[in-house]
Amino acid sequence: MLATPVNPTPSSAVLHDLSQVCGRHGRDDLSTRLAELHGWVKGELADFERELALVERGPRMVVQAAHHLLDLGGKHLRPMCVALAAKCGAGFGPAARQLAVSVELVHTATLLHDDVVDVADVRRGQPAARAIYGNAASIFAGDWLLVEALRRIRAAGVEGLLDRMLGIIEEMILAESLQLERRGRLSEATISDYLRVVEGKTAALFRWAMVAGARASGCSPEVASALERFGLHLGVAFQAVDDHLDFAGDVATTGKELFADLREGKLTYPLLVAIEREPQLATIVTELCAGSEDGGALDPAACAEVVASLARTGALAATRALAEARVAEAIAALAPIASADARRALVTVAEATLLREA
Amino acid sequence: MLATPVNPTPSSAVLHDLSQVCGRHGRDDLSTRLAELHGWVKGELADFERELALVERGPRMVVQAAHHLLDLGGKHLRPMCVALAAKCGAGFGPAARQLAVSVELVHTATLLHDDVVDVADVRRGQPAARAIYGNAASIFAGDWLLVEALRRIRAAGVEGLLDRMLGIIEEMILAESLQLERRGRLSEATISDYLRVVEGKTAALFRWAMVAGARASGCSPEVASALERFGLHLGVAFQAVDDHLDFAGDVATTGKELFADLREGKLTYPLLVAIEREPQLATIVTELCAGSEDGGALDPAACAEVVASLARTGALAATRALAEARVAEAIAALAPIASADARRALVTVAEATLLREA
Repeated sequence: MLATPVNPTPSSAVLHDLSQVCGRHGRDDLSTRLAELHGWVKGELADFERELALVERGPRMVVQAAHHLLDLGGKHLRPMCVALAAKCGAGFGPAARQLAVSVELVHTATLLHDDVVDVADVRRGQPAARAIYGNAASIFAGDWLLVEALRRIRAAGVEGLLDRMLGIIEEMILAESLQLERRGRLSEATISDYLRVVEGKTAALFRWAMVAGARASGCSPEVASALERFGLHLGVAFQAVDDHLDFAGDVATTGKELFADLREGKLTYPLLVAIEREPQLATIVTELCAGSEDGGALDPAACAEVVASLARTGALAATRALAEARVAEAIAALAPIASADARRALVTVAEATLLREA
Repeated sequence: MLATPVNPTPSSAVLHDLSQVCGRHGRDDLSTRLAELHGWVKGELADFERELALVERGPRMVVQAAHHLLDLGGKHLRPMCVALAAKCGAGFGPAARQLAVSVELVHTATLLHDDVVDVADVRRGQPAARAIYGNAASIFAGDWLLVEALRRIRAAGVEGLLDRMLGIIEEMILAESLQLERRGRLSEATISDYLRVVEGKTAALFRWAMVAGARASGCSPEVASALERFGLHLGVAFQAVDDHLDFAGDVATTGKELFADLREGKLTYPLLVAIEREPQLATIVTELCAGSEDGGALDPAACAEVVASLARTGALAATRALAEARVAEAIAALAPIASADARRALVTVAEATLLREA
């Protein structure tokens, strides 16, 4: 297990927490590999975090709302993807560092808009930006971060990455649209809808992070494309674990209320599987969502019924299985990567995704 | 006066309406010049509108929300600026056409976000996109249009314009932020705050439109910079007229409720001037805004007091004077433009801005 880091960067802290989780699950092998991974990328992560801290500050409320969320420091998993992909090539140079900051800014921008859309009060265990600065500032803060990200991608000067990011943002928006259209109408949604939403809203940005690191460090097109496939499958696995945590997570660890996705009527894999296996569950879920539309509490008895159905139908197990299958596909995609160190690091990230609790 | 156009394009219809207004104001000279202007740019406007109609459609709700507003067809004044600037050089070619579409998409994106921020129900005389599709779809629709615009600017391939647009969008966001910070606190706001807000939220995009047309058509840097100054002053004049219309407009013509800015506690020039001259007005305005915060109606007696103060203090006249002064500066900026036809057309646009009623 990793020693508790002194003055840890947020990313180091995440690796440390994951390592502890591995210990609790008796996965000492993975815990050891996480320590290795940490040693292997800590310099790059520190470089990234120094660069992130330089994002312009100022007196405007919109800029402060953006920094409120940025400074809470998420898992920085997408920047880590950029760094690891760059280490498949010539390394994490200044261009890759800018791209790592950009992907975190785009991710943060989407969270600021999502919080307004979802009327969320809490993010990363703290009041959401919209709860402090209001919806308007949160919307404009998202817009501002998006523009900052695009300027950095442009400045990094790596051929094709700006066009790709614009395409990725469009994929994310169209996925959010499909999710909105299906909101609270889970009985009409299909597993195929779910995968389209997840590939757009989550996996697309992971794909970009991997390609960005690869391109910035001079990887071959074959390697870049292998890394992009890794990002796609990692992103889907990551979201499936997220869906699972909505029903089985620990609020203190995730910083997110339990049943938040359920309350918002979002397509999640466990619910879709359970409804497929017990169609009458759709009515209970639809009523639950409708009942909490004005911010009211979820009916505890109905929640208990949902949880019982998820267990009875094996929907939670199916969600784990989806995540595991995608992690396996992500790992299989790594075959063209020449560097054994880089491959080992990426395999560790993929496997640790399955164990994350936040 | 212009004959009523057959199957008018929205821009032709705007020129036609303006021409009628000129007739009513006894400005037959301007009416004649508007007819000339129309003849001079109608081909370009029709090309622009054909290109705008090709913006991708699709089944996603977010795309439909974006088209709801796009299809209502605004005044298309910013695209007309691109066309007129391009006609100062080699003309309105395919790149300039894409840039004209882009500026309209960015403008529409800001309206979609503004409507959410302002909780507006009506836009262009029709239900706002957020009233039909919801806030979430309206936010994502704005994001989508922004991305579409940036992709087109990129595809147009004119050196420097994408970077400039990213800078312009940042200026717009920071101006919106300042406006939010001063919302409902008009007694603390200054004329200098007002000008910073207006230069950012309105004039910046006019500046870009002029530069884009100039650059795409091979104008010299001197001409491009003259056109940019024209855009700046035109934008401020345009906003001053808008402020005036909030108190003195005709709902049927503007498609916008009277006192909408007042209700939202926005910095407008007439209010700032009136408060400077009668400081006790600040209290009445602050109470008016606070009283209508939950969507309640404005108190008619207080509204009447505000209108009386605007007349008594000469604040509406001062607003007209600001608009006129900026129109004069815009016209003065045109000295380096060699083409007499182009100069004449731009002068007409600037002068007509003062007479617009919508």
